[in-house]
Amino acid sequence: MVASLRLPSLTSLLFPATTRYPAALRRTLCLRNRPASGFATAPSGTASPETKSEVGRLPRSDQAVTPRSQDFSAWYLDVIASAELADYGPVRGTMVIRPYGYAIWEAIQDYLNVKFKETGHSNMYFPQFIPYSFIEKEASHVEGFSPELALVTVGGGNELEEKLVVRPTSETIVNHMFTQWIHSYRDLPLMINQWANVTRWEMRTKPFIRTLEFLWQEGHTAHATPEEAEKEAKQMIEIYTRFAFEETAIPVIAGRKSKMETFAGADTTYTIEAMMGDRKALQAGTSHNLGQNFSRAFGTQFQDENGERQHVWQTSWAVSTRFVGGIIMTHGDDTGLMLPPKIAPIQVVIVPIWKKDTEKAEVLSAASSVKEVLQTAGVRVKLDDTTERTAGWKFNFWEMKGVPIRIEIGPRDVSNNSVVVSRRDIPGKAGKVFGISMEPSTLEAYVKEKLDEIQSSLLEKAISFRDSNIVDVNSYEELKAAISSGKWARGPWSASDSDEQRVKEETGATIRCFPFEQTLGSKTCLMTGNPAEEVAIFAKSY
Amino acid sequence: MVASLRLPSLTSLLFPATTRYPAALRRTLCLRNRPASGFATAPSGTASPETKSEVGRLPRSDQAVTPRSQDFSAWYLDVIASAELADYGPVRGTMVIRPYGYAIWEAIQDYLNVKFKETGHSNMYFPQFIPYSFIEKEASHVEGFSPELALVTVGGGNELEEKLVVRPTSETIVNHMFTQWIHSYRDLPLMINQWANVTRWEMRTKPFIRTLEFLWQEGHTAHATPEEAEKEAKQMIEIYTRFAFEETAIPVIAGRKSKMETFAGADTTYTIEAMMGDRKALQAGTSHNLGQNFSRAFGTQFQDENGERQHVWQTSWAVSTRFVGGIIMTHGDDTGLMLPPKIAPIQVVIVPIWKKDTEKAEVLSAASSVKEVLQTAGVRVKLDDTTERTAGWKFNFWEMKGVPIRIEIGPRDVSNNSVVVSRRDIPGKAGKVFGISMEPSTLEAYVKEKLDEIQSSLLEKAISFRDSNIVDVNSYEELKAAISSGKWARGPWSASDSDEQRVKEETGATIRCFPFEQTLGSKTCLMTGNPAEEVAIFAKSY
Repeated sequence: MVASLRLPSLTSLLFPATTRYPAALRRTLCLRNRPASGFATAPSGTASPETKSEVGRLPRSDQAVTPRSQDFSAWYLDVIASAELADYGPVRGTMVIRPYGYAIWEAIQDYLNVKFKETGHSNMYFPQFIPYSFIEKEASHVEGFSPELALVTVGGGNELEEKLVVRPTSETIVNHMFTQWIHSYRDLPLMINQWANVTRWEMRTKPFIRTLEFLWQEGHTAHATPEEAEKEAKQMIEIYTRFAFEETAIPVIAGRKSKMETFAGADTTYTIEAMMGDRKALQAGTSHNLGQNFSRAFGTQFQDENGERQHVWQTSWAVSTRFVGGIIMTHGDDTGLMLPPKIAPIQVVIVPIWKKDTEKAEVLSAASSVKEVLQTAGVRVKLDDTTERTAGWKFNFWEMKGVPIRIEIGPRDVSNNSVVVSRRDIPGKAGKVFGISMEPSTLEAYVKEKLDEIQSSLLEKAISFRDSNIVDVNSYEELKAAISSGKWARGPWSASDSDEQRVKEETGATIRCFPFEQTLGSKTCLMTGNPAEEVAIFAKSY
Repeated sequence: MVASLRLPSLTSLLFPATTRYPAALRRTLCLRNRPASGFATAPSGTASPETKSEVGRLPRSDQAVTPRSQDFSAWYLDVIASAELADYGPVRGTMVIRPYGYAIWEAIQDYLNVKFKETGHSNMYFPQFIPYSFIEKEASHVEGFSPELALVTVGGGNELEEKLVVRPTSETIVNHMFTQWIHSYRDLPLMINQWANVTRWEMRTKPFIRTLEFLWQEGHTAHATPEEAEKEAKQMIEIYTRFAFEETAIPVIAGRKSKMETFAGADTTYTIEAMMGDRKALQAGTSHNLGQNFSRAFGTQFQDENGERQHVWQTSWAVSTRFVGGIIMTHGDDTGLMLPPKIAPIQVVIVPIWKKDTEKAEVLSAASSVKEVLQTAGVRVKLDDTTERTAGWKFNFWEMKGVPIRIEIGPRDVSNNSVVVSRRDIPGKAGKVFGISMEPSTLEAYVKEKLDEIQSSLLEKAISFRDSNIVDVNSYEELKAAISSGKWARGPWSASDSDEQRVKEETGATIRCFPFEQTLGSKTCLMTGNPAEEVAIFAKSY
């Protein structure tokens, strides 16, 4: 604690906070030096945590962002590091969600939580430790999940008699409890949700997209009739679809999974599939009609109005932190993250600009007033009034962070009683408008209109990207051509599971879904030439 | 699915939903039949989950609530079951938090989350799996926590090379990450919080109070100076104290833990101690000044303004689902739960009353209007308009659930344009006021005033209970007498750790804290007769 006369080094003067170099500057100064074996890969067969080496570290944020077109995967990891969204945890495949990434997750939670409650669901919490025997009760469930389980075998210093599963999903423990709460038809429907962490021992991991532990919500419902369960499963995928379109500007395609891709233990799985910037598909949310599979396995019964005992009909549905990855990979560009205003933790950043000390006070005072006006209007706004950085540095930093609107205020703006407004989604001068009045009602209206415009524009851009990358195919040759050109293929399908497996093996693509939106008219299966009821969408996926 | 002609049984006609018998009725009909070896006890030395037997099941809600004065612990478990707050999970010592109990936790979260953000903390999320080697790095930390650890030893079907700890708390992994984020004094203070589940393999468990897995928030901060860390630790215990007083009406005593009772790895632990209805103490929240213990163990360093490398000064602080147990045990009575209005998921329940079908429509319509008025005014209100239950049944049910205010509306009230208002905290006729006008502004003002009154009244009652059960003592004999009469003892203390240990062994009481509020004047240690700086509070505790 003794004061030292040593001066700070030149480097620390230039770049005081090492976590915050502007992208532009970094490119000229540093070489990217990311280890080849990153988060996404692990030596197969090993399951040991890597705690000591640098392997598995995300690129540091003082390194340049790889251009998206050059290496999409490297770009994705760079953006996550530079925008300070997440870091690797010490155990292989785990992720630390940093405040800015977590704030996006909180925005997702805030929206969905309201929708879940509006539709009659209550939040609650189930323990994460599940007796191993529970997992074994539903045959296809155990088959689907047993390769991915993390097992607790020691507790309080003692070997456990029965090993415990760290929940990969909660259908089994939910049913165990439902048997205690459900007796009569009057106890139905029972509709609950929990926000929780889940664990799946994945070998190939990628931040947000597939991690050993992730955060999600899982809804679980029990109904007296199959019709009610089906209606619920459809309702929830509809809520997810609206959320994706309206909040995150991701134009997902909603539909039904093929039998092969259905959740382990479900009769039917509904899904929303999103096209990422590299045209790979991301399953962004699912809703399962579980039929009576779990209720029969666990004996979850009720007495109906006629006094007969029946097994309940169930659903489950989930959205996870994977959605954050979907937002990054849908909208981001070479400059970094690009956030849809509705989901952005910061919607507007204000950057005050001055050269002389005499200008500073009036610029900062005007900037504070503007902040006050927007904050009162309900806009999520940040004033970046730090003095250690240049305005140019700040521009780059907040662009990397994907903030939809930047407001610049300099001495000339103050004397004109106006500000400069820049849109993140329109690069350079085209996205910059000068002379917007600081008058509160004018400014508020202008900013809100621009936020709406950006939100719509991101969605339109994503829709047009999606639609220009889906090819309608009528033969397996056409399907193969579409997939090998990196696109999605949409074509009539009524072939067998083994044909579906063949497509997967030969092209790397899977049936993402049978979309709810179907074209009219008679169809012929692209593989067999037999009549087909529906078109399916094939794509490579995360 | 074939319709049956069989009639429902007589029992199901009388008690259609078996989870919801009124307490009064239950008492006359059923004998309580709770197994002797409940949740709170487990055969020592065993660590196996009990998944098959009925042992460990909470009393069913169709059984009578034990009078509080007769058996406080049985009363507590009965209330949890009957008010539908929680249930046992399938693994020994785990708990399912049911919607009504979870809603109380959500109210706690909503309040604290705002306070944390106001004081500059950001939410984020750390993985729950911690390499075992991390736990070993801080000597007293491993000593404190190693007996309570749950270990994951198998992942994805393979034995892990290094076993993983399911987090009992996150100081170690937080420090591991802090080393990557903290470089310069400009990165400080770093102030974060996470809402998460934690696991401690406790042998003696009790719902909400001590469970194998529980929910909490854990704040973690790093600072450049010890003064800042101390200020932060004090600030957070102050936030908890205000929360306890103002929201939950629990008059906690805030203070400093003795050295023996300090958190494993902390320099100083601050605590809030609450007196439960059985006069046992509950540690309801803690804030630790960690000094440089973890930063030295993990090498969490920063370059100060003089270019010198220094270890950061840290704090951590937490409040958990245990607080829900504290609310139950502070305010509940023989009728069940009693919730402070600010934390109550439902503040007002409206019970419409009619005899003839001709009266039903106008009563229900008036009840709906009243609900609308209160809802618009921001009151959390529920209209219980089910037709399967009598008004008397509903009265008992919502009293059991601890709803602060009940509004009754019958045909005569409708014609008088008035309602009857009953307070949960004043039993019988004394708490009932007739003829409150339905006129919106009058009704709103009346209800809000009553809610405030109830909130204050619960706090005053708890303060007077607390103060009448703390005895000032000046000798060990007086201390022993106070403790054996079930009270708390407060007296000057400057004796040794071994004296403190002796008190624990001979009386069962521990030092709960050295309260911040100290009496003036010179003091003489009650044990040694030496001069003492402070009084300490001794009590038996949960």
